[in-house]
Formats: sequence, structure tokens, C-alpha cells
Amino acid sequence: MPEIRELIREGKGKRVYATEDPEKAVVYYKDEAMAFHGLKRGRILGKGEINNAICQHLFTLLKEHGVDNHFLRTLDARQSLVLRCEMMPFAVKIRNRVAGGMHIRTGLPVGMKLEQPVIEFVLKESEMDVDALVNHTHLLAMKAATMEEIEEIRALSKRINEILSNYMSEINIELIDFRIEFGRYHGKILLADEISPDTARFWDSSTHEPLDIDRFKRDLGDVKEAYQEVLHRMMGISE
Amino acid sequence: MPEIRELIREGKGKRVYATEDPEKAVVYYKDEAMAFHGLKRGRILGKGEINNAICQHLFTLLKEHGVDNHFLRTLDARQSLVLRCEMMPFAVKIRNRVAGGMHIRTGLPVGMKLEQPVIEFVLKESEMDVDALVNHTHLLAMKAATMEEIEEIRALSKRINEILSNYMSEINIELIDFRIEFGRYHGKILLADEISPDTARFWDSSTHEPLDIDRFKRDLGDVKEAYQEVLHRMMGISE
Repeated sequence: MPEIRELIREGKGKRVYATEDPEKAVVYYKDEAMAFHGLKRGRILGKGEINNAICQHLFTLLKEHGVDNHFLRTLDARQSLVLRCEMMPFAVKIRNRVAGGMHIRTGLPVGMKLEQPVIEFVLKESEMDVDALVNHTHLLAMKAATMEEIEEIRALSKRINEILSNYMSEINIELIDFRIEFGRYHGKILLADEISPDTARFWDSSTHEPLDIDRFKRDLGDVKEAYQEVLHRMMGISE
Repeated sequence: MPEIRELIREGKGKRVYATEDPEKAVVYYKDEAMAFHGLKRGRILGKGEINNAICQHLFTLLKEHGVDNHFLRTLDARQSLVLRCEMMPFAVKIRNRVAGGMHIRTGLPVGMKLEQPVIEFVLKESEMDVDALVNHTHLLAMKAATMEEIEEIRALSKRINEILSNYMSEINIELIDFRIEFGRYHGKILLADEISPDTARFWDSSTHEPLDIDRFKRDLGDVKEAYQEVLHRMMGISE
């Protein structure tokens, strides 16, 4: 086991710690849940373990499909070892159907299928009360990334969306949208952070029932069961 | 004088009327001022006349520099005749220095000079309380414009920014940012709407004092005098 050192950052659903190896970090997946920019908080018992397993599964899948990422290996039920990246100050949201904030922003109906994915850059730190959407000209002004990096991140995001959408459809889940983060690792852009029902909208392909954090946000109940269902379907395919 | 028919649309600072000629519309510039998404309202006596004159001046200048636009001719002190366009559902904001919403969104300091202009697409109708920024993928999803139109609008916006920035600097005004709208006229993208201290940030190049609607928003006083100063400097150069 690596030696856990200082907390590097804490997100809604995880903490990231330094280790004795400056090249590596440990991700600890929490049971805590948070929504609406911190206005709604709760705890989903067992969520951390499920998300750790889902991330292991999806990051491994992506690597097999040629998308390098920060994941190295799981350490225990709640923790994984990852490459320690210099994180970009923005997240990328990829949308295949209209939901959530995109409905409010554009007025397009929830559930509308998008002919081309919508790709959004969202600042992780902002004084805005809503998602601080930016475009490439803002990112260049902020020196958050070079134009080459932005183009690479766009292309990677589309590729990741294709791989995940195809895979999820095999287990009868539709990937509605998801949020990912990238980092720099020795000058290379690397997918990092997490991909889980905390950061994605997964709808059952047949019923369009959400199997993700929206169950918590909208008090639909069976939150843990939905997360578990996602993991079980993944395990059923991969075993 | 053309015959004024039904009101087509009403903005913060103007009304647009149909005429007996389906190809033409009349813009009536109002004295009313509005800010903060309608939360602050007031009246700046004489503003309508000044903005009518400023728009005539700037649209004529742009045409001389090869940028076609909707302006035809002034009708009287407050009204101008324009080509009647099918307006795009989004405005374009071009920024040369950080101010206003960009400071809140990005945290970059007010007044910071941008190496490259920031170009924003903002929906004119949205349920968001703040500017509904979108990127080209949203516009395509909304079928608000084709990719070719978006690219043309980006290129035109940059060109308009260059022409106006150069011209304004000759009259000791720095063009900090401005908001423009485009329309379709017989399949062609045409600059429309207005360019005035209501829709732009004009700073005195020497003192960095605002000569625009920010004087109203921030209760700096001498609002009409500032608008008049902008017009006087334009007239001094052009006469």
C-alpha cells in the first residue's frame, strides 16, 4: 500500500491524497452526495465502494480502447491508485440528449436526442451560482490551456463518448451526458478524475429511468440500488 | 417617410416596426435605459437621438470598410430605416478587455487586456438569470444557425471589432467590449441591431472613464453627457 500523505483536493464524491511517490496519488471515494452547488447534501451508504469499482471498470475499458488515463489499480474497496496529474481548471461535459442545465439554458426539451454531441467547458472555480460555461476564447484568455490542448481535449472527449456510449448500450444503459476532467502528466493530456453515476446521467435504455445522481437530486429513492444496478450490469458483461 | 406598421420587437433601448415594404423596418431609439436583466430601469433624456446618430455613423463607417449591414438611412432624429432581417436568436459579444460578466465568470481582473478578443454567443431568450452563454454545439443543437453561418459570424465579428477598435482609438476611445446581433437577409448574414453606448463599453483612452451605459448601471452620473461626448468625438473626426 502506498503511504497516504496530504489531501490534494476534495470533490463532491471523493478525496485525492498525495503519496510518498510524487508521481502518484490515491483517490478515496466517499459516500457523501452533493447537488445544486452544495445546497443539497446527503449520504448514500456504499456509494464510495460502488463508484470505485465502476471507475476501475470504465477506466480500464477506455485504456483497452486506446484512451490513456490516470488509473493505475484499485487499492481496496474505496481507494484507487492513479497518476498524479496537474489538473486543468475546467471540466468537460459531453451531452447526447438534453437534460438538466442544458434544458434551462437553451429551452430545448428534456430527453431530446442530439444529432451531434454537445461539448461544454465548465470552469471548476467561479463566482457564478450556475455552471460557469466558457468557450475556447475564455480558456485562452485565462491561459488555462493552449489551443492545441483544447483541440486535443475536444477530440478525446468525443472519442471517450463514443466508446462509453457503445459500451453502455450493450448493457442496456443510455449515456445521456457525463462530466470528465483532464490533467497534464509530463506534458501529455490525460483523462483523470472519475466517471460514475455521480458525474454522469445513465438512463435505462428501455424505461428511461435514471440510474444515477438524479435519483438523489430529485428524491426518486433507491439511489444506492440504482448505482449497484449499473455496476452489476457492467460485471455481467465483463465476467 | 415610410408608413409605420406593427411592432416587430422591442429591446432595452429601441423598438422595431414593420413598414408597408416587407423588406424594410424602422428602428425607433428610446430614451429608456435598462440594466441587470430589467431590475434597474430609468430614462436618459435625449439618449434615443444620440444613439440614432451614433448608429448611423458606425453603420456607415462599417459599410465603407466593406461590412454590409442593415442600415439604410436616418428618417428623423430618433428613427432610422433598415433592411428587415430574420434575426438570429443569439447575440455576439466581443471583448478586448475583461469587464462586467467576464470578470464574474472567469475571475480575471477587470481591465485586463486580452491578447486575443474573447467572442461569446449569448441566447436572447433563456430561463437563466444570467447571460445564457452558449457555444457552437448548442447553436447547432438548437438549429439556430448552420456551422457555415457560425463561422461567418465569428469572422465578421472579428473584422467589425478591428474596424471599430481602430476607428475609436482615433477619437481617444477604447472599445472594451460590445454586443452585436446578426440577421439573415435573403440568405445572407447581415449585421443588424445597434452599436451604441447602450450595447458597448467605451472607455476614454486616457482616463479609462466609462462613456457608456455603465455610468447608468453604476450611478456614476453624467450619463447623457457621456453619450453626447462619444457622438461629439465622432462628429469631430468625420466632419
